[in-house]
Parts: sequence; structure tokens; C-alpha cells
Amino acid sequence: MPTYSDLDAAKAFRNLVSAPRPKPLPELLTPARVSACSIPMGGGLTYNFAAKLVDDAVVGLLADLAREQDLIAKYRVLLDGEEVNTGEGRKVLHQLTRGQLGKNVEFEGKNVRSFYEGEREKFSQFARNVHSGKIVGSTGKRFTRAVQVGIGGSDLGPRALYLALENWARNCGMLRMDARFISNVDPDDGYAVLESCSLESTLFILVSKSGTTQETLTNELLVRGELAKKGLDPAKHMVAVTSETSPIAKSPDYLASFFIDDFIGGRYSSTSAVGGVVLSLAFGPEVFAQILKGAAEGDKAALEPDPKKNAALMDAMIGVYERNVLGFPATAVLPYSQALVRFPAHLQQLDMESNGKSVNRFGTPVSYSTGPLVFGEPGTNGQHSFYQLLHQGTDVTPLQFVGFLESQRNEDLIVEGSSSQSKLKANLAAQIVAFAKGKKDGNPNKTFAGGRPSSLIWGSKLGPEALGALLAHFENKVMFQGFVWNVNSFDQEGVQLGKVLTKQVLKGGDMDGALAAYAALLEV
Amino acid sequence: MPTYSDLDAAKAFRNLVSAPRPKPLPELLTPARVSACSIPMGGGLTYNFAAKLVDDAVVGLLADLAREQDLIAKYRVLLDGEEVNTGEGRKVLHQLTRGQLGKNVEFEGKNVRSFYEGEREKFSQFARNVHSGKIVGSTGKRFTRAVQVGIGGSDLGPRALYLALENWARNCGMLRMDARFISNVDPDDGYAVLESCSLESTLFILVSKSGTTQETLTNELLVRGELAKKGLDPAKHMVAVTSETSPIAKSPDYLASFFIDDFIGGRYSSTSAVGGVVLSLAFGPEVFAQILKGAAEGDKAALEPDPKKNAALMDAMIGVYERNVLGFPATAVLPYSQALVRFPAHLQQLDMESNGKSVNRFGTPVSYSTGPLVFGEPGTNGQHSFYQLLHQGTDVTPLQFVGFLESQRNEDLIVEGSSSQSKLKANLAAQIVAFAKGKKDGNPNKTFAGGRPSSLIWGSKLGPEALGALLAHFENKVMFQGFVWNVNSFDQEGVQLGKVLTKQVLKGGDMDGALAAYAALLEV
Repeated sequence: MPTYSDLDAAKAFRNLVSAPRPKPLPELLTPARVSACSIPMGGGLTYNFAAKLVDDAVVGLLADLAREQDLIAKYRVLLDGEEVNTGEGRKVLHQLTRGQLGKNVEFEGKNVRSFYEGEREKFSQFARNVHSGKIVGSTGKRFTRAVQVGIGGSDLGPRALYLALENWARNCGMLRMDARFISNVDPDDGYAVLESCSLESTLFILVSKSGTTQETLTNELLVRGELAKKGLDPAKHMVAVTSETSPIAKSPDYLASFFIDDFIGGRYSSTSAVGGVVLSLAFGPEVFAQILKGAAEGDKAALEPDPKKNAALMDAMIGVYERNVLGFPATAVLPYSQALVRFPAHLQQLDMESNGKSVNRFGTPVSYSTGPLVFGEPGTNGQHSFYQLLHQGTDVTPLQFVGFLESQRNEDLIVEGSSSQSKLKANLAAQIVAFAKGKKDGNPNKTFAGGRPSSLIWGSKLGPEALGALLAHFENKVMFQGFVWNVNSFDQEGVQLGKVLTKQVLKGGDMDGALAAYAALLEV
Repeated sequence: MPTYSDLDAAKAFRNLVSAPRPKPLPELLTPARVSACSIPMGGGLTYNFAAKLVDDAVVGLLADLAREQDLIAKYRVLLDGEEVNTGEGRKVLHQLTRGQLGKNVEFEGKNVRSFYEGEREKFSQFARNVHSGKIVGSTGKRFTRAVQVGIGGSDLGPRALYLALENWARNCGMLRMDARFISNVDPDDGYAVLESCSLESTLFILVSKSGTTQETLTNELLVRGELAKKGLDPAKHMVAVTSETSPIAKSPDYLASFFIDDFIGGRYSSTSAVGGVVLSLAFGPEVFAQILKGAAEGDKAALEPDPKKNAALMDAMIGVYERNVLGFPATAVLPYSQALVRFPAHLQQLDMESNGKSVNRFGTPVSYSTGPLVFGEPGTNGQHSFYQLLHQGTDVTPLQFVGFLESQRNEDLIVEGSSSQSKLKANLAAQIVAFAKGKKDGNPNKTFAGGRPSSLIWGSKLGPEALGALLAHFENKVMFQGFVWNVNSFDQEGVQLGKVLTKQVLKGGDMDGALAAYAALLEV
């Protein structure tokens, strides 16, 4: 069994802190590095860290740290079904939704992988029946749209993946149904989505692992009310994705129910039924299987002990160096693909909810920085917005670029001798170099200091396998960083207090004076 | 004339740094503060800073600093047409698009306010003619959709404002046309929007101040190509918003052209023709006039010298305290209104592009932190995502909440004794208090340290006047902070280097070796 200990107890970390810093990026970044610093990620993707502020010596020390913190062994016991989520006493098995890399995992006498696969078969068959018209709405109309009702991990990951493939699927004739999402308890969110739907041909997917999420249950009733108003039978227009033990499991109010369990955390649930039902309905079960294949390749690639051959591990270790040695507080995710418009929002949850912790896995406060702030928008849009601060602000923010050789559609246009996709890629290459190398100018206002590190994930085209590998890469990066920082990346106690206080406000009961004052101000 | 000097040269700043810190927020935040710390903002909105980490002594010192840096005088000379954008030798006149608060401003013999008002009359009349069917598409069909083609400030602000009022307008019968936006040079963006449109009844608004923005001109050709493919006359389906001196001004290729000038920066252009054309088409010129009215009220409120009576000034000064004394690197914007879903992206540009600078207005490097990172997502969604880090992460991130007493629609639903809007507001009140006060718990994993400061902007309902005031508030806050930091908040030299390098890549000419290597990797 691996030993869990704090980052600042590691000898390799002390070596890293006292080691000389690499020479500045403008000198460090050479053409030779661009070709040398590539690592395959699975799914046809490659991770390139040529423009990161690490040299061979630092990479060597980061490899020592990964070894000393025993990261691969910790990943392996997680895969084998160890209760890595110690706070909640739970296994962590999202990787098992897409492959078997460790031992068989049993829980209460059943094989967990078989359970996940069984659910996948169920919802695959359900999707086929919807597509063939065997399952139809309560007036006999075929379903042409799926609306997912969920929040947090039941929304962000599935939504990001759906949007990432919507145009790809439309272009190659694979869009079986389109999808929409209702998440916010703000009634303006739900009503606006419902207004855009022809309810007779809309199938709703209610997603709540616990079956008790206030926002989701409220939106469910809103949806049921609107269906009933139109004379439709809500039970014929809604399926549930939940755990077998939840209060809504196996209710006759749903056309079908698909199950997950406590070993799939919300932010890690995109490859379970939480993402699988809507993605199989939208794109067909075969496309969902390709997403899983890409993710499984990413998981497998993450088993390699040498960071130079393990993209998720290298990305994680460089992130630790940037956070705990160089002292950078944030990371920007900048996909040069409009299809990844909501992928940064998913990563924001994945990373910040997993590693935004101040106590280690044993409950002792840590005395070093843990998870960074994560934010981002697609390029080139961001170039016309917040890149100003990234280039010339007083703080340095490490950057994560993502790009593809081809667009998702075959359509493009040559303007001034280049296609839009070429312009997109030229901008991407230019930004990496501009951030790293900067530029001196006689006018100090036009001087770029450079020294702003970035990495690049790239592939030929954004399709389902690449997307699965991209998803798994960040899940595994965040997992490795959690192991380095010795925090539990799989609970989220930080969201509980707000829920408790919200209930106090709504009950109008015994409240802290300030809380009562705010409630009065807002006329709750 | 006011004197421009660096923050660290100010005596009040040194006093602030050496002053005792306020007592911790859990003690500081009392019910009395909640009622005492409110400042009207115009447009029916109120700014409340009860949960900010400032006490009377700190507020007094911040007022001293505002006085010493002569912020109101600097605002007044800006309003009077002084060339405050020194780097580019330009006046800064976006406030003049919505009111006359300073002297008459003349440029090249014309009154600038009359010019802006004249353009507004032109596009108001144009919108009326579109709505009445006097102006129709090339096949005689009425226009029912407007598509804005622009990037950066020609996209983010107008898009955020449109989305903020779309459902409000639909609900009160004011949605005259719906709107879409094409921004990214990624061809998948443009084609996806075009696919969703019936081109016969779609009017395009091409927005580029310079008339040379690569992304926008590329997308224009893409749009014209698709129109021509459908047998439509592109010149009958497109208007331009640009400057009178741009290469596309007064071209016969447009149905009409509307003008702005160099004194309206991109990120400050929502209340000029850049936002005005699309918003007048979507909601009618009267609604756009209400947005301007709210913004003008915000501008007027920002003239008050006492920060305790000037919300934008107080917000700015507290932000400086958090950045330069308390050392917090970022700010999260958290609107409890789904309608404000893209408002944080607009603020990200507004703030980070304005104050993400390392040299002062005279070109001398500053030795203190300037603009923070800005990011955000609507609540309650964020609560199920990155709030974990905000509550329990190792860094403190100051928060800006926004909320409204009523939803934009009349529709709502009582579930478990409360409406969705009440739940939304209860969550908002609960979060403010949870962040500020925290909670001790026997389990350290469930302990919340508290001490995480936030402010709240609230109003009765999000309509056009409130939205205008909200927009102006942040513009003026950012302006005041730029004055405090002594930077030029109105240029953006940090975006230029990337453009130059992009051109080198596309020309395939003389390139830095690393740039050539990345271009080869991405097969540009």
C-alpha cells in the first residue's frame, strides 16, 4: 500500500524549492524543444510542454517527487477499488465506466464494472428504441430532442461534451436528436428552455445521484407542470438517472431509470449514465462508445511511471511546480475550437471542486497552496478580451492551449490566401510564442516581457475519441495533483454550509442576525 | 488639471498599508452593517459592501486615497473631452453616448454628443423601418432575426446585454427580433449560427471599428458567400457599424452604415452604435433608450466625491485595498440570474483588458499589482462547481454577487413551500453569510474558515434601466481603479504582438525558429 504524506514532507519537494530556476523562457524555448517535448495522450492527442518553464533538471526533480509521492501506486490502488475517498468512505471508480485497468472490483457481491456495463447496455438499447420510433411520446410523436435536467456535474460535463460534438455530428450525419440543458434554479432558465421546445417530441432526462438536489427537483416539477398543461403524460416524457438507493429510483413516474452509484463523483460522471444517456440519445450509442474508448486510452496512458511518457502526470507535476515553487495562483484554459466553448467551465468544476481544499486527507491543515483558480474562453475570442492582462498584467498566469489541425466541418473559406482554420492555427502558434518570448520595444507600452508559460494539447480533429482522451487527461491530471498535495480530491464538503443556511432562510427559522438581515434585504 | 502619479507615491496609500487590518469578517459582519453599508447606483440598483473586509478606519483611508489621487477630477476632465487615453492620443467619450455630464466636446468642428445622438436617431429609424416592414430582405421577406458579426468588444458587451433582456422582452411582448452572434474565426462558429437561421429573413450587422479586424472580415465573407449561395443579395441583408474613416465605411455593399469614432473603446462600446443597432433591432429603440437612461444615472452617481455615497468609487477603492493591501489576485463575479450568463465574460474583458497593465500612463513600469483576474458563472450553478475552492481553498478570492427580488417572468412554481425565485434569493443570502462567517466543526474537513469577502448589487428586477446602471457601474469602477493605479485603462497594446506574429505565420515568411516549429506542428 502506498503511503500518503504531505507535499512539504517530501525530500524531492525541498530539492525542487532549492534547485536553480530554469533560464528564462525566451531563451529556453527553442525549435528543438518544440519537437522534443511531446507526449502522446491517447485518442490521437499529443501534449506538448515546450513552452513551460521547466528544464531537464526541474523535470528530473518533478519525476523524483512523483516517485516519492508514489503517484502511480496511488492511481493503481484507486483502480483496484481502494476507498481513496476517505472522507466519505467511498471507492473512486469513474475510470471503471470505460475500462478495466485494475483488479475486478466487487461491492455488495456484485462486480462493479458489470454493473456499469449493464446500465450502459440498458441505455444504449433505450436510445436505439427512441431512434427507431419504438419508444415515442404520449401523443405518439417521435422524440427529436433530449433535455437534461441536472446541475453541477450532472450538467457541466455532459453539456461540454454535447456541445463539443454537436456540429461534428451534424456534419457527418450522426446527430440523432439535439439536446438542451436546464440547470439553474432561476425559473427564467427552465422556462426559456421549455419555450424553445416542442414538448410533444421532447424527452427529459432527470439527473440527480442523490435524488434530493433541490434545484433539480424544483426544475423537474416545473417541467412536469408544463408537460401536463399541454395535455402530455409526464411519465411518458421523462427518464431518470440516479442511484439505486435514491428516493426517486424505480419510480413509475419515469419511462425508464438508469443507475450510477456512490463511486462516481458528480464531476467525474460524464462517462457514466449521467453523460451516457444524453450523449447516446444525441449521437447514438456507438459514438458514446468511442468517447469511452478515447477516455480508456487516456486512463491507460496515465499508468506510465515516467512523466516524460505520461502526459497527465507531466501536466500535473508542472502544475505543482507552477503553484508551489513559482507561486502562480491561476490557470487559463484556452481551446482554439468553438466546439469546446463550455469545456473550460467543466474543467473549472473538475479542478476547483476537487483540489480547492485546505486540509489533507487526514483532516490536518496543509501549509502550502493547493488547487489553482481555473478559467477560460475559446480563442481567438479571448485574444480580443482578457489576453491583454495575460500578456502585460503584473501577474503571470500559466496557460493551457488546445487546438486541432482540421475544423469539425469540411466547409471553410479562403480569405487573403488562407482558410479560417489556418488563421485559427496561426493565431494559436503566434500566441504561444508571443507569451513565451515577448518582445522588446522602444515604447515601454508596446514591450512584452514574455516569460508566460503555456502548454499545448493538439490532435488532428475534435471527434469522440479525441474528446474522451481530453476528458480523461484532465481527470487524471487533477487526481495526480490531489495525490501530490495529499488532499482528498473526491469529496466536496465546501458546498454543504451554503445548503444548510439556505434551508434556514427558507424555513424562516432561527437565523444568524446577518443572515436574517440579508434575507430581509432580498425579501426572501 | 489633476496630477497623475503612481499609487505607491501616495501618502494615503502608505497610511493604508501601515494601518491596522479590520477585525475578522466573522466578527465584523453584523446586521447593523447590512443596513448601513448600502449605496444607490442609479437604475434602481443598490451596492452593498457590508460583507467586505473594510471597517470605518479603512474606508476613511480609502476616501483619503481617492482624494489624493484626485479621482473625481480625473473623471471630470475625461467627461470634458481631455485626451485621457494618452498612449493613443485619444479622448475617452463612451459616457457621452448616454448623457452630457461635462462640457460640450468638439472634435474637428463637430459636437461629439450630437454626432452620437445623430447616429442613434439614424439606427432608431432604421430599426423602426425594419419592424414596420418598410425595409425587408432581398426576396421581400420581413427580417425576424439579427446576427451580429464582431469580436471582442463588438461581441461580448452587446451579447451579454442582449441575453440579459431576451427573456424579459419575450415575456413583456417587447422582443421584436431575436439575435445571434458570430465572433470566432473558427469556421465551425459561423457555419453553426448560419445553419440555425432562415437567411431570407436574417439581417446581419457587421461590426468593426477599424474595418480591418481579420476575424470579422473573414466571417463577413463567409456570411456573404452563404447568402449568395441561397440566391440572396448580400447588400440587402447586411448593415455596417464602423468608424467614418474605416475602409468599409459608406460602402454600397451595405444596406446602411452607422458610425462610431475613435473615442469609443471596443470594451466600452455597448451604449454606442456597436450595441445600439442590435439592441434597437431586438427590443426597439425605446428599450435601448432605457438602457442608456440607466447608464446615464450610473455615470451621474459616479460624480459624487464621497465614496460612501458613490458605489462605483467605493467598489473601486475596496478592490484596490483587496489587491494592493490584502494581496488577493482575482475577483469572481457571481450573478444570481441566468439572464446574466455572459455578463461575467463581458466584465472579464472590461476589467482585464483595461487594467491588465505593467507600465503607468507615462510608460514607466509600476512596482505594485494592477488589475485582477476576473471570472464567474451564474449562481446557483457555481455553487455546485467551483464554490468548493472559494469556500475551502488555500487562497481567498473576493466575490461580487448580483441578485434581483423578482424573476424576469411572472411564471414561477411553489415547491416545498417556496418559489424558485425565493430559493434563488435564499441561496444568495446564505452564500454571502457562509463565505463571510464560515463555521467551526469537530471534523476539520467540514470546517469553513470564513473571512471571504463579498459585495452585493441588488435591485427589484433585471430590466433595461437596471442593466444600463449595472454596465455603467463596472465601467466607472474600472476607470477609477485605472486612475488609482495610474495606468491607461483605454488602450490595449498587449494584443498587438500576437497579431504581428500571426501575420508572419500566414505569410510563411521570416519567422522565429520556435514559431516556425509550432506552425509546422499545427500544419499551418
